[in-house]
Amino acid sequence: MDARIINPFLEAATNVLKTMAMIEATPGKPYLKKESRAMGDVSGIIGITGAAQGSMSISFEKGCICAVVTNLFGASVDEINEEVKDAVGEMTNMICGDARRRLEGDGISLQAGTPTVVAGQDHSITHIHTGPCLAMPFETPSGGFTVEVAFND
Amino acid sequence: MDARIINPFLEAATNVLKTMAMIEATPGKPYLKKESRAMGDVSGIIGITGAAQGSMSISFEKGCICAVVTNLFGASVDEINEEVKDAVGEMTNMICGDARRRLEGDGISLQAGTPTVVAGQDHSITHIHTGPCLAMPFETPSGGFTVEVAFND
Repeated sequence: MDARIINPFLEAATNVLKTMAMIEATPGKPYLKKESRAMGDVSGIIGITGAAQGSMSISFEKGCICAVVTNLFGASVDEINEEVKDAVGEMTNMICGDARRRLEGDGISLQAGTPTVVAGQDHSITHIHTGPCLAMPFETPSGGFTVEVAFND
Repeated sequence: MDARIINPFLEAATNVLKTMAMIEATPGKPYLKKESRAMGDVSGIIGITGAAQGSMSISFEKGCICAVVTNLFGASVDEINEEVKDAVGEMTNMICGDARRRLEGDGISLQAGTPTVVAGQDHSITHIHTGPCLAMPFETPSGGFTVEVAFND
C-alpha cells in the first residue's frame, strides 16, 4: 500500500480530534490487520473512489467518543445515543475530507460516499478489498480509537 | 428520493439472490427508515459516489445468509464465520454492481467503493446523509434480509 495515501489519514485524524474536540491523540504503531475483531464500541465507515478504491473506518472506545462528544457539544454525554452516532458520522466525514485535501495537494484525487455508523458491543468490521488493511491505533486520555484504511491493489 | 435510483437496487437484490444462490426473495413493502435498529445479524455496506452520493447496505438474518452461503459453496454453513463475511461482501459488491449497470442504461453513472462487512448481534446501522433512507425488506424460505439505500439530496 502506498504510504503517500496512508499518512494523510493519520495526520487528518490527529488534526480533526485536536481542532474539533480539543483532544490530543497520540498515534501508536500502525499494523496490518489480519482479523476482523472489533476495535471499538462505535464505528464510522466511509467508501472511497477515484484514484484509489477502498474504505476507511474509525472505531472509538466508548470513553473516548463520550469525551469527544462532550467537548464538541459542551454537554456531558455518557452513552452511545443517536447524537453520539451522528457525531461519529461527522468525525468520519471530517477526517476523510481533511485527508482528501492533503492528498489533493499531492495530485491524488479521491472521492467519498456518505458515512455509515455502526454501533454494538463486540461488533466486527471486515474490509473487503484486494490490498492490505492498515490499522492505526491512537490513545487519548479518555480511551483509544483506531483508524483503518483498506484499498484495492 | 428519486425512484429511478431506488428500483434498480431492488431488482438487483432479487436478481443476484436468484442467479447466484438459487434463492427466491419476495420483496415486502419498502419504508422510510427513521431509527437505526439492527435489521440483521451480518451486514454489508458500500459507499456510492458519482451522479448521487450515498451508501447502500444489506443486512441478513443468520438463517438467510447461511442458506445463501450453503447454496453458493455447496457445503452446509451454520455460523457467521470469516467465509460467510467474505460472501456478504461479495453479495454486496454484486448487488451494487448489478444496480449500477441498470442505472447506467438510464444514463445515471454511479461509482462504488469497496464493501465493508459488519457482524455482531444487535448491531445498529445509521446512514449519515441529508436525504431519506429507504429500507426494502425481503423474505426468503430461510429468513429475511433488508436492503437500505440512502443518498444526499
